Amino acid sequence: MKEIHIGLLGCGTVGTGVAKILIENKDLICSRVGAALKLKYIADIDTEKDRGIRFGEGVLISDAEKVLNDPDIDIIVEMIGGEGIAKQFILKAISNGKHVVSANKALIASQGNALFKAASERNVDIGFEASVGGCMPIIKTLRESLVGNRITSMTGILNGTCNYILSKITDEGMSFEAALAEAQAKGFAEANPALDVGGFDTAHKLAILNALAYGMEVNLKDIYIEGISGITPTDIALAGQFGYRIKLLAIGKDRENAIEARVHPTMIPFDNLLSNVNANLNAVMVSGDAVGNILLYGYGAGMMPTASAVVGDIVDIARNILFGTSGRIPLFSYQPESIRNIPVMPMDEIFTHYYIRFSAADRPGVLSKIAGILGNYSISIESVHQKGRKIGGFVPIVMLTHRAKEADVKKALSEISVLDIVGNKPALIRIEDEKNEDE
Amino acid sequence: MKEIHIGLLGCGTVGTGVAKILIENKDLICSRVGAALKLKYIADIDTEKDRGIRFGEGVLISDAEKVLNDPDIDIIVEMIGGEGIAKQFILKAISNGKHVVSANKALIASQGNALFKAASERNVDIGFEASVGGCMPIIKTLRESLVGNRITSMTGILNGTCNYILSKITDEGMSFEAALAEAQAKGFAEANPALDVGGFDTAHKLAILNALAYGMEVNLKDIYIEGISGITPTDIALAGQFGYRIKLLAIGKDRENAIEARVHPTMIPFDNLLSNVNANLNAVMVSGDAVGNILLYGYGAGMMPTASAVVGDIVDIARNILFGTSGRIPLFSYQPESIRNIPVMPMDEIFTHYYIRFSAADRPGVLSKIAGILGNYSISIESVHQKGRKIGGFVPIVMLTHRAKEADVKKALSEISVLDIVGNKPALIRIEDEKNEDE
Repeated sequence: MKEIHIGLLGCGTVGTGVAKILIENKDLICSRVGAALKLKYIADIDTEKDRGIRFGEGVLISDAEKVLNDPDIDIIVEMIGGEGIAKQFILKAISNGKHVVSANKALIASQGNALFKAASERNVDIGFEASVGGCMPIIKTLRESLVGNRITSMTGILNGTCNYILSKITDEGMSFEAALAEAQAKGFAEANPALDVGGFDTAHKLAILNALAYGMEVNLKDIYIEGISGITPTDIALAGQFGYRIKLLAIGKDRENAIEARVHPTMIPFDNLLSNVNANLNAVMVSGDAVGNILLYGYGAGMMPTASAVVGDIVDIARNILFGTSGRIPLFSYQPESIRNIPVMPMDEIFTHYYIRFSAADRPGVLSKIAGILGNYSISIESVHQKGRKIGGFVPIVMLTHRAKEADVKKALSEISVLDIVGNKPALIRIEDEKNEDE
Repeated sequence: MKEIHIGLLGCGTVGTGVAKILIENKDLICSRVGAALKLKYIADIDTEKDRGIRFGEGVLISDAEKVLNDPDIDIIVEMIGGEGIAKQFILKAISNGKHVVSANKALIASQGNALFKAASERNVDIGFEASVGGCMPIIKTLRESLVGNRITSMTGILNGTCNYILSKITDEGMSFEAALAEAQAKGFAEANPALDVGGFDTAHKLAILNALAYGMEVNLKDIYIEGISGITPTDIALAGQFGYRIKLLAIGKDRENAIEARVHPTMIPFDNLLSNVNANLNAVMVSGDAVGNILLYGYGAGMMPTASAVVGDIVDIARNILFGTSGRIPLFSYQPESIRNIPVMPMDEIFTHYYIRFSAADRPGVLSKIAGILGNYSISIESVHQKGRKIGGFVPIVMLTHRAKEADVKKALSEISVLDIVGNKPALIRIEDEKNEDE
């Protein structure tokens, strides 16, 4: 029986999950792969903690260098996270000719180009399925299953914490703070939630998906990012009245020689499956010229679902080792020489539908004033709704627009905002509604 | 630039789609694979029909043998369908050392064991992603992404025609006949719809998935099959009142040393994503010990979605050829020596929840009589609903049961059926409701 030797760096939540699968499902995996996957070393600074699994004698050590330099080790599994020591370890593994598996989206989104170049030069593989969407095989699907398709659009719910918070506010009327606290108590929001709630984690994942789908280098810096902290229960309730749910979406669209790349709260219609993806689940809808729409759904984070994806990558690489076929699939889905420099469209240039909520004085002429300014910027209104009455006071006025240009909407809103008939800053939420796409 | 030569047998709907992708997305595929996929021959009995694509001179021929015997051809794509000539051609291709791609679920479900054995002996690959769920990468997901998981359950909507019909009846109040006629007019129901409507096509797909998930040979003959023709608008409407939608489900569950394998109309709760999969779309939910639940969704049939999956297989095999790694992944997901003889549980032995609708006399004592017989067979009732009143006549009485044994339910129903207080044969529909699974 052939053996593949694995070294695991970092034995936190997901690292422990990976060890658990490799140990507990050892025979099952062997019966599928036809070789034994042997977890030779696990390096972690904490070698004392009870992780609920029995490792063999001498497996759990504190010295990562020993793992990286062991000539027996074929695959290094980096489960440390962050952009510091994790990067150094990955580069060391590559330079030692070892294959790498990592779930480190922040690192791949910011430095994937350099890491992948180093890996190509040493002809080693990097598996990173778990970096986007946890257990959902979105990377394999883009690189392999949809290889015959020109990808036209991707829309995804890629952060479980944000989705959990929005679901709790929508379905249980919970406050943002209470929902966030509950997500933290359940262990899937970070102690410092800014990376999740601010949309940055979602952007990391979108940067990776765009590279795979469109044949470009990873480009994180040009993604437009807007988090969920500005979403109010009022807007969520109003969205429901119009047949929409609000989700934090990652949107990557092909716009011929440019792509749209944006992360923001988005209204999507009830009959879009994504609007039914709740709690801490993730999903991504991919559109291609042949496939039409395809959706993957599953847990985007958590110990075992993420570990499942990591083990899928380990096995893929093990199979490559057994058959001597490293580099069988290009890391970024395209051959290196085919990767183009595709610009990200400035946010001001995108066209979409908008939900705009004004707080406006409840008196005649106000609506015509607001509509007039929108009209001056060529923004056509699909419907207008005044919610309630308060003579002499301010009431919410909601407008849903037809397809309009972001720059025009922004200009109109800033002009409207300074009117004395308008109260607080207007709320603006973009709408993704396929039925309206072809206008 | 390396070239991989492809021979296509059968240029009907899906075959034409495959040719279209290979021709129109040639450069895109090349930029991903790093080699040219060249469609050398297309064999079809009709070489005159206008298929809307320009083939090169001499590409479209009528002689399949010429394709099968051409030493240049690396991959044979069988798009003929059926279990006759298609099987002969595949065996010929294998014996000539050519790799095969096929979407022929009927053939693989009935004779996959023999075909795959022949392929293994000649060390050629067979790609069959398109045989289950069209464009959804369910086969790749089971064989590769979930390789670290013990699969515990699969529930899928795998026939677009049935799903279209049920959706139309449910959402538009259409009759079964009108919905079927519309599906036929749209071109995704066969002229002879028995294979779809009777549940047989779904069973073919389930047989394939069970083999991949559980490490058993393909076993079609032991699958319990019940089609959708007995489903009435009354039951669909009542299901809605209880928070369920009726779908034709393929169910494959691990029951330790046995599996459940059944195809029948099933009530599933609104909050299960599968209940939101409508029209001619397919979806499959897979549960594994690590992954939790994962769902894939997309078009299960149709020219381009199916062709997308076929091209994915062609590229997988092309990559194997380029790297000299045929047989990298075992065809049935497990190493041949690990495939076990796992029996399918007789339908009588399964436990599930039931919806039972009686037509019963509207007079005192009737309910207690029916409930008494159910009680004698240890069938515990979750709720009872009498719909309307008709003194001296018959009214529908609906009972939802707790988890009960199929054999007991059948015995009770046959005892109840002969009572003079009961009208027509009772309607029975099984319920899949995760929330109740752990009773």
